[in-house]
Amino acid sequence: MADIPQTPLLDTVHNPDDLRRLAPEQLRQLADELRTETISAVGTTGGHLGSGLGVVELTVALHYVFNTPDDRLIWDVGHQCYPHKILTGRRDRIRTIRQGGGLSGFTKRSESEYDPFGAAHSSTSISAALGFAVANKLAGTPGKGIAVIGDGAMSAGMAYEAMNNAEQAGNRLIVILNDNDMSIAPPVGGLSAYLSRMVSSREFLGVRDVLKKLARRFPRPIQKAAQKTDEFARGMTMGGTLFEELGFYYVGPIDGHNLDHLIPVLENVRDAEQGPILIHVVTKKGKGYAPAEAAADKYHGVQKFDVITGAQAKAPPGPPAYQNVFGETLAKEAESDPRICAITAAMPSGTGLDKFAKAHPARFFDVGIAEQHAVTFAAGLAAQGMRPFCAIYSTFLQRAYDQVVHDVAIQNLPVRFAIDRAGLVGADGATHAGSFDVTYLASLPNMVVMAAADEAELVHMVHTCVNHDSGPIAVRYPRGNGVGVALPETPQLLEIGKGRVVREGKKVAILSLGTRLAEALRAADTLEAKGLSTSVADLRFAKPLDEALIRRMLTTHEVAVTIEENAIGGLGAHVLTMASDEGLIDGGLKLRTMRLPDLFQDQDKPEVQYAEAGLDADAIVDTVLKALRHNSSHVTEGARA
Amino acid sequence: MADIPQTPLLDTVHNPDDLRRLAPEQLRQLADELRTETISAVGTTGGHLGSGLGVVELTVALHYVFNTPDDRLIWDVGHQCYPHKILTGRRDRIRTIRQGGGLSGFTKRSESEYDPFGAAHSSTSISAALGFAVANKLAGTPGKGIAVIGDGAMSAGMAYEAMNNAEQAGNRLIVILNDNDMSIAPPVGGLSAYLSRMVSSREFLGVRDVLKKLARRFPRPIQKAAQKTDEFARGMTMGGTLFEELGFYYVGPIDGHNLDHLIPVLENVRDAEQGPILIHVVTKKGKGYAPAEAAADKYHGVQKFDVITGAQAKAPPGPPAYQNVFGETLAKEAESDPRICAITAAMPSGTGLDKFAKAHPARFFDVGIAEQHAVTFAAGLAAQGMRPFCAIYSTFLQRAYDQVVHDVAIQNLPVRFAIDRAGLVGADGATHAGSFDVTYLASLPNMVVMAAADEAELVHMVHTCVNHDSGPIAVRYPRGNGVGVALPETPQLLEIGKGRVVREGKKVAILSLGTRLAEALRAADTLEAKGLSTSVADLRFAKPLDEALIRRMLTTHEVAVTIEENAIGGLGAHVLTMASDEGLIDGGLKLRTMRLPDLFQDQDKPEVQYAEAGLDADAIVDTVLKALRHNSSHVTEGARA
Repeated sequence: MADIPQTPLLDTVHNPDDLRRLAPEQLRQLADELRTETISAVGTTGGHLGSGLGVVELTVALHYVFNTPDDRLIWDVGHQCYPHKILTGRRDRIRTIRQGGGLSGFTKRSESEYDPFGAAHSSTSISAALGFAVANKLAGTPGKGIAVIGDGAMSAGMAYEAMNNAEQAGNRLIVILNDNDMSIAPPVGGLSAYLSRMVSSREFLGVRDVLKKLARRFPRPIQKAAQKTDEFARGMTMGGTLFEELGFYYVGPIDGHNLDHLIPVLENVRDAEQGPILIHVVTKKGKGYAPAEAAADKYHGVQKFDVITGAQAKAPPGPPAYQNVFGETLAKEAESDPRICAITAAMPSGTGLDKFAKAHPARFFDVGIAEQHAVTFAAGLAAQGMRPFCAIYSTFLQRAYDQVVHDVAIQNLPVRFAIDRAGLVGADGATHAGSFDVTYLASLPNMVVMAAADEAELVHMVHTCVNHDSGPIAVRYPRGNGVGVALPETPQLLEIGKGRVVREGKKVAILSLGTRLAEALRAADTLEAKGLSTSVADLRFAKPLDEALIRRMLTTHEVAVTIEENAIGGLGAHVLTMASDEGLIDGGLKLRTMRLPDLFQDQDKPEVQYAEAGLDADAIVDTVLKALRHNSSHVTEGARA
Repeated sequence: MADIPQTPLLDTVHNPDDLRRLAPEQLRQLADELRTETISAVGTTGGHLGSGLGVVELTVALHYVFNTPDDRLIWDVGHQCYPHKILTGRRDRIRTIRQGGGLSGFTKRSESEYDPFGAAHSSTSISAALGFAVANKLAGTPGKGIAVIGDGAMSAGMAYEAMNNAEQAGNRLIVILNDNDMSIAPPVGGLSAYLSRMVSSREFLGVRDVLKKLARRFPRPIQKAAQKTDEFARGMTMGGTLFEELGFYYVGPIDGHNLDHLIPVLENVRDAEQGPILIHVVTKKGKGYAPAEAAADKYHGVQKFDVITGAQAKAPPGPPAYQNVFGETLAKEAESDPRICAITAAMPSGTGLDKFAKAHPARFFDVGIAEQHAVTFAAGLAAQGMRPFCAIYSTFLQRAYDQVVHDVAIQNLPVRFAIDRAGLVGADGATHAGSFDVTYLASLPNMVVMAAADEAELVHMVHTCVNHDSGPIAVRYPRGNGVGVALPETPQLLEIGKGRVVREGKKVAILSLGTRLAEALRAADTLEAKGLSTSVADLRFAKPLDEALIRRMLTTHEVAVTIEENAIGGLGAHVLTMASDEGLIDGGLKLRTMRLPDLFQDQDKPEVQYAEAGLDADAIVDTVLKALRHNSSHVTEGARA
């Protein structure tokens, strides 16, 4: 695995300027070496492989033809950017990717001027590229915005909104549709390449322009017919009507692995006076690496692997992943309940719903990257008596926040939200952290918000969601594996708004929400060893709060600490607010809230991230001891004076 | 104004069943009476007029042809639903619309079974209709989902996401594109009506189906060519290629005011086995009421008016509206700063940016109903050195929450958010309330969140936004008019995270954010009269907090109260969290937080809503007195026992 491949030409390319000094006939070799280096690097670190391999030639061609970084190249989602990072001065750190302190697995502004816009969530690239293009246009400075966006990302409404607004950018905006979905890809070959080159040529565009100007002198029906004919003729050979309807000049499809096809078309487009232009490029995920090409998921995200055999390092055996516990539990619940439906936004396996889909295909809905639609579609299902589960990662549910408020919470419809990847998420870093959902959900009237402390709790909570028909309900749980508790034979129906006391003590109370419970119990052991009798409660619900339990905890202990895997405004804020509303804090209560810090944390192992965040057992002990030591000499200094 | 028109036929129609008993030739009269009644009612109450008048015939035709409420009729946005309400058992209350205790100005599930899905934000209807359709399909029960959506609402990504997913509903989903934008409307007339009727007929659809099935036996290129030819032939006569690309069978355009055109097409579509079908209906906003037809905004939202003359009741003269102060201030700032840009999502006058647009047209961007794109486009502009202002109402910024997190906050880009309609909004009710923005923004790292206490403060805050280049910044302000303070000649650059003490006292401290400041000062007068010396601070910033000021207030007064026009998780939560972090609450601090209650409040006058919410001067006084009386006998009862 550790063998570094021979890459004599790539070794001479330290940045795109070096690349642009090469002769065109050298680019094929460069691309081959770049592919080899990418495979070797990801073999060492794990990460996203298939998508990067699919754009090796495109990466070379774009930097060769365009004047990066002044032309702003934006990789949608960003997980295909490893070859781009290798070519833009980050090759020396490419084997640190997704590791703590290393390169991000996505584009990131702070890493390089060649990353003008960070991405990790899908479908932002056209809007951003349009921003760059328009800013340059206003300032009268050179520079285009170039968005490279996959066919999957095109299913998000945001991409459509951006395309609808693209016309104003004129020739400063170029969208490259990276189409790697073989099921929709039309045949690409010599004829198509020839046609693409032809329709993007200055001569063709010039003639077309003249004809257009002429046509304006004719009555409108004739203009329209002429326009239709032009579109039709181009559409017959090339597809792309949708993009033409949205105001783009469409070029393609062309083979994204053939540099002899790519380069001349990109050069034509670069020099075209017309725009915006969409170039339809057909690529193959995992291209050039047999194990990736053969795999169903094209090695989308991989562990470290052996470059020769493609064998991925196996994760050590352990408790089941939360996503699978969720998917299997829901599939089982649905056996006896025909009203249960499941919805994912392009994450069937990531959410564990692949198990549900297999068992109940008619009630499974993969809506594509369309979280907004997913939630309101679920609201419609719920309003018609179904029991829909919307399974969306915490960070992606942000995309549907207004739909949660306006279509679900205001109407008090019983949509069930299964919120995976809550809290810190490890290698994907800040853009994927599920840091805010307790805050943004628990502030909504009608909403019920649960967090599972372990995988058995998740089973109970899914069951509780199923049976909660009086309004919306959400359960959050983390990325990764459970803690190893036995899964219940029969799930338990939890009482809404009731927590549980896991450990009874007298002096210190730890009020936990979610999987920090394990750390809370470890902290309790340490405190007990120091003679501090400690209670630990698993509140289960951020909303409604178990007010009776909290009241008892706050009034019978000297120090109380809340802990959660969420930013400010979540459980801690709600407990403080309740304590303040009831005057519980008036009597000198030592109440502290532990939460995610006020910063975006970079990628690292989750346990390292949580230690950095101050949310592990040691930090709990510190917080308690500091609170106990704190001498409260407050009370109206001014009034006393 | 008070004259109730003669409506003999309408008087016999109490619900859609009555309507369906009429003969087709009676429908014209019914529509005329319905239009008269709608004009009369809105003349009495004010409200949305033009959009309702545009769909009078469509409303009659839909209820006549379809089996409502089992067929689920969903009005996108909902502001065109007044005629629908009149026909569905709510005529007796139509003159209470948008008033406290009266009918909602939008569709609302709790009002009627004929309102299967509430709406007020745009572009949700197709997703919801799809949910209804699919639920019925799964349950094997009859009933279609019918979405009526305007051409403007089609610009939102959410509508596109839904259309992309519509195919699974088959003939259970019908989308009616209500096209009232004359600039894009193609000519409609007898030929178009004939063609629409023809292509939606069972015979045509049948033949088409047979041909399709036949074509499947041919090689794929021939299939594709045949399909293209079919699309082209239909596209030549009728347009609608975009919708066909998304999987819809397109019918139209037809004249939405001609019942003889509408009814047969709707009947065909109702009985078609194919689907989903999109019917393109062309209507005129304000149709049939001359003053509305003549007005530029087609009487979109109106005050009470004289039905004969169309003269609207004038608002009493008073201080300028916040939106205009914002728009004028920004336009002025932009005179000397070429980097300032302004972005609105289809609300040029509502945001006050019409003034900016007039002065700086090249730097003004109306992106349509596309908040997601608006924010990321602004992020792109900011990344390229511009100073973009995104002016979006609080409730609509929810649509772009993920873009605020992922594209703006994580990248720490200096996008300026001008958040109008913060807090309660009066007649528009719960769906338009700006209740959550402090919670969802102040929990984000890097974000600065301000709230203007009055219109002069807004001027300072806009100026402060302009000059804040180190990261994102937001200023929130309410709907309606300022308090009447003089606007500053020269705006002041506020120090980030610094509040101001408006009144110094000794016993009680009121910490205010936003326009509750006036009530806080009134409360202070009352308290002072009771011998309770009261300080009032305008914190200005919810994030970063003015920690020094807050610390001083909390430690030098006996009672401190925070107040804000926002739900839980906002200013109060942040002050409590800070106080708890620092141990300030340990010493027996009487700290209370006043915020919006945990429920969705119906429409009423804003001052009534705030009284209901417990956020007026009386409520502040009560809170303070109750806190002072509260005898804190807490402190570890358990530990003492």
